[in-house]
Amino acid sequence: MADEVAVGIIGYGIVGSGAYHILTDNADEIAVRAGCRIRVARIADIDWDRPRTVPVPPELRATDGRDVINDPNIDIVVETVGGTGAALDLVMAALGQGKSVVTSNKELIAKHGAQILEAAASAGVDVGFEGSVGGTIPICRSLQEGLQANRFRRIIGILNGTTNYVLTQMTEHGVEFSQALKEAQEKGFAEQDPSNDVDGIDAANKIAILSAIAFRERVPVEQIAREGIREITPTDIRYARELGCIIKLLAIAQRAKDGQLEVRVHPTFLPVRHPLAAVSGEFNAVFVEGDASGSVMLYGKGAGSLPTGAAVVADVISAARNVRLNCRNRIPCACRGTADLKPIDQCVTSHYIRMRVADRPGVLGACANVFGEEGVSIKSVLQVDTMGSSAEIVWLTHAGLEGKVAEALRRIRAFDVVEQIAPPIRVEG
Amino acid sequence: MADEVAVGIIGYGIVGSGAYHILTDNADEIAVRAGCRIRVARIADIDWDRPRTVPVPPELRATDGRDVINDPNIDIVVETVGGTGAALDLVMAALGQGKSVVTSNKELIAKHGAQILEAAASAGVDVGFEGSVGGTIPICRSLQEGLQANRFRRIIGILNGTTNYVLTQMTEHGVEFSQALKEAQEKGFAEQDPSNDVDGIDAANKIAILSAIAFRERVPVEQIAREGIREITPTDIRYARELGCIIKLLAIAQRAKDGQLEVRVHPTFLPVRHPLAAVSGEFNAVFVEGDASGSVMLYGKGAGSLPTGAAVVADVISAARNVRLNCRNRIPCACRGTADLKPIDQCVTSHYIRMRVADRPGVLGACANVFGEEGVSIKSVLQVDTMGSSAEIVWLTHAGLEGKVAEALRRIRAFDVVEQIAPPIRVEG
Repeated sequence: MADEVAVGIIGYGIVGSGAYHILTDNADEIAVRAGCRIRVARIADIDWDRPRTVPVPPELRATDGRDVINDPNIDIVVETVGGTGAALDLVMAALGQGKSVVTSNKELIAKHGAQILEAAASAGVDVGFEGSVGGTIPICRSLQEGLQANRFRRIIGILNGTTNYVLTQMTEHGVEFSQALKEAQEKGFAEQDPSNDVDGIDAANKIAILSAIAFRERVPVEQIAREGIREITPTDIRYARELGCIIKLLAIAQRAKDGQLEVRVHPTFLPVRHPLAAVSGEFNAVFVEGDASGSVMLYGKGAGSLPTGAAVVADVISAARNVRLNCRNRIPCACRGTADLKPIDQCVTSHYIRMRVADRPGVLGACANVFGEEGVSIKSVLQVDTMGSSAEIVWLTHAGLEGKVAEALRRIRAFDVVEQIAPPIRVEG
Repeated sequence: MADEVAVGIIGYGIVGSGAYHILTDNADEIAVRAGCRIRVARIADIDWDRPRTVPVPPELRATDGRDVINDPNIDIVVETVGGTGAALDLVMAALGQGKSVVTSNKELIAKHGAQILEAAASAGVDVGFEGSVGGTIPICRSLQEGLQANRFRRIIGILNGTTNYVLTQMTEHGVEFSQALKEAQEKGFAEQDPSNDVDGIDAANKIAILSAIAFRERVPVEQIAREGIREITPTDIRYARELGCIIKLLAIAQRAKDGQLEVRVHPTFLPVRHPLAAVSGEFNAVFVEGDASGSVMLYGKGAGSLPTGAAVVADVISAARNVRLNCRNRIPCACRGTADLKPIDQCVTSHYIRMRVADRPGVLGACANVFGEEGVSIKSVLQVDTMGSSAEIVWLTHAGLEGKVAEALRRIRAFDVVEQIAPPIRVEG
């Protein structure tokens, strides 16, 4: 058994420095839990001139990730570079050197997970990516070792802290999307270019990763039906409240009745009594349904130096245990292939549909007829006279084929009395 | 590497049959996840005449647990007998035979965990007890492998489904404890002798187990300060609501500022905005605070054949992986000794105190003086004239030493104008 396991870190930014801080500050306790000391032997970053809150002794610093990868003493490489360019090369090179890898890079794992996990299996080493989904939440580990007796039915996640923060601000203070986003940017909860978060790209990468673990099929990220939160208005949030719901950006993966996998990311009306409804601000949560466990939820901070660093270090400790006991690649990838996702128009969901129409007799009936002809069953309808000559109609549909709703709206949009149809919002539960 | 790992089950009741059902019904998927087939080779129970929902083929049946333990082909023994008599003997015998053990027996692990884990370490095998705390919730695993980079500050659990169900009924329907308990018994959520649940004994066993993992000190269960929910009234629940709180039976373990461990189980006023406040009915949840992760919560079904069976099978799969790769005892006990718990009178908490007094001038002031003299700081006080000559006074104290509150109440109880003081209820958050 090794008395000490050496770790190298490549990329000394927010997560890398959080991991280094934890590994050094909490080294004694970690040694007891790991069964061996875990020593940070080398840290590579291209820019050591930037000021850092967690300083690194000069003798540990490198500027080339290859210095970490090629160090024969290093057993575990932490990749916290980000992106899919250099990061992929570095990870593949580390695996090629027979080193276990830990990464918090969701885009890398979502897009190149198959290649990376196959290389890890060939090399007989571990790849840990707990920090890539849900920040500090131990969801990957729980799906692999804790809930793994289940056949999973469904995963619903609030997987993006930025959008959850923005929606929470909109819900609690009645502000517009643009204002809530601006505040989030000022507080550091949103990037200057927020597309990755507000358009659901980040959440799509994360649900792709969780789907692969739970459903054992790799999910092509580009196949995931995805809508962001830019179009959500305070009016929608108000209607949601009247219906006993709250609007959340949810990432949903489920096995449809016909066995096909269905994965989508979109704003959703969620009943306030649902455990996910209480997840506010920058917190994340994952709700899992298994055939044996029933409903399980995990909740925690979805980002941040120490929270995500803690997930990275947890993976490092697990990898170190496997180095020490020579049982690396203990939990190999269980995927049986690549999923062919159900097209969104064949998914079965309920919708909230808000439209502005000319306030004239017969308009409601004409729209209702179209829904009826397309086989879209209406659960409730509310007509409100909002402004002068125009009225607002809010429809709630029963669960039905998405394609039918889209077709009905295409036809209704063509009516000249219909002034505007807001993007429909799906309703869960 | 072993192609197949054989499991024996001792005790074929609710949890044992749930585990067997999952292991057989989901065998193919489990084989992929474990990396080997997991075969149930033998099941022992003293009574095969009782009708079972999950039948067992006659050739697997044994009536003596020793037949399972002494079977040289069996690698993993599942103990679902319950209690600390025969169960302890069987577990120790299985470990003595070099077999890994999985158990859902909270009393056994809480009281004899040290002895069992030491025997497992000597034998170089695993002991899994995920099913002993929080039913299906993967909390033990998450503390050991997922959140293990943290120094843990605090654990707050809703760890007993029966009391949570009873308190939820009392809260939602305004019924008395006795009526809610009767309903719970009729629905099978409570035993005919409910003491183990309603007096907090079960929750104390569970928090002792979690404390040992998180704080690395074994907790003598009999030292845990413990109060049950028998004295909670609809009046208390109403006052809680007025104060923005809900009453939950919480199991709390935390490292006090002086480093001493503090573990207690009692009904608690919890703000409705706390994530644990939304945990209703028979569900359990564990809220963990770590120095790196911050707040994390895990939520799920705290009992039941399949939910708890899923936790047992998760441990079986993990143990099978370790058998296959010859890395048993991968996560040994990290305890450094036995805790000397902080006596309850030295704990610092806030209290809700409700008393009935004679409706006479000066009573409020006299009580307030006593609190002041004992150094108990009052946050708010409310006097209501409830019935004729008697008035109700409700006090909320600031956080302070428990012993001071107890002493103040001892003195106040001696006043002849004080008719009754309800058991004080602690306030969290």
